Amino acid sequence: MRVLVIGGTGTIGSAVASELSKRHTVITASREQSELKVDITNPSSIESMYQAVGKIDAVVSTTGSVHFGPLTEMTNENFFVGLKSKLMGQINLVLFGLKHMSDNGSFTLTSGILNRDPIRLGASAAMVNGALDGFIKSAALEMPRGMRINCVSPTVITESLDDYADFFREYPSVSADTAAQAYCKSVEGAQTGQVYCV
Amino acid sequence: MRVLVIGGTGTIGSAVASELSKRHTVITASREQSELKVDITNPSSIESMYQAVGKIDAVVSTTGSVHFGPLTEMTNENFFVGLKSKLMGQINLVLFGLKHMSDNGSFTLTSGILNRDPIRLGASAAMVNGALDGFIKSAALEMPRGMRINCVSPTVITESLDDYADFFREYPSVSADTAAQAYCKSVEGAQTGQVYCV
Repeated sequence: MRVLVIGGTGTIGSAVASELSKRHTVITASREQSELKVDITNPSSIESMYQAVGKIDAVVSTTGSVHFGPLTEMTNENFFVGLKSKLMGQINLVLFGLKHMSDNGSFTLTSGILNRDPIRLGASAAMVNGALDGFIKSAALEMPRGMRINCVSPTVITESLDDYADFFREYPSVSADTAAQAYCKSVEGAQTGQVYCV
Repeated sequence: MRVLVIGGTGTIGSAVASELSKRHTVITASREQSELKVDITNPSSIESMYQAVGKIDAVVSTTGSVHFGPLTEMTNENFFVGLKSKLMGQINLVLFGLKHMSDNGSFTLTSGILNRDPIRLGASAAMVNGALDGFIKSAALEMPRGMRINCVSPTVITESLDDYADFFREYPSVSADTAAQAYCKSVEGAQTGQVYCV
């Protein structure tokens, strides 16, 4: 398969790319650090990326940002950071990717634990993760030409604990390699409409 | 209590207003049909509404729209209809309402069944409903001064079957009065962070 991993230079993305490249051709895209660049908040940047890549058999997205902050200080604009990046950025990877995807290809997006197991400062992240979990469950009903769609909803990643341990105090972490298994299961398996919680 | 019901002239909203007015002072707001008008897609309209209403003890929202359409024809702009209306419209009712809300007051929002039990054409609705369910669960952790927040996630409403039966074929419907009970339970009860599925 030709697999496009967007966010492929990040902690999770590089673990996914490493595992998939044992059996498939992996193309990595990211905002700055890979040869193939994409800004997922910009639909025309997404379209340009797909034009450059050509036909693909799977898309994995491990990217997107949200604003973290106290609910009582959050603004409409703070919420739109996540709506434009992690949410619509990833949904647009699907909408724009459909015509570049092979029959029976797959999309695998990234949500996260915070809508299931919330923390302080995480209202926007919980909103975006819940939106993604809902979207893929519904979108799976309408994917054309046998295509599939799933998302992976990880807890905090062990390799990121230096940055995030204070937010996720006593949340069991998962290694990037273990999280990557869920993405590879989505790409190489047959399931659709699933939220893989890792 | 002084309860503000936004969308209070709609099918669910009028049932909620009717039940709550037996025991409380109900103020109804809507886009066009009530004396107090509000466009929830416009933050300054929300602020004006709250300025006009003054101190309140509970806010119930039964409003917000989303775009329904085939996934393969949906655009970024189609998704933003629901993001700006049903999602951020309702979240802004909370953000802007905090300073007008009494201690121990409550917000009750409306999501819906489609992220739990999806249909064709409903990817944007599933996204928005999942976002709302995630948001309230997280926001409940950070509500100031003893405030609470819940949402009601209704299936198709019996009184709306003339318009929606084709989309919700063989979904058991619920009457507006039965759905209204969940909103009143949220307003008059003690729970927070709950998604009431009716």
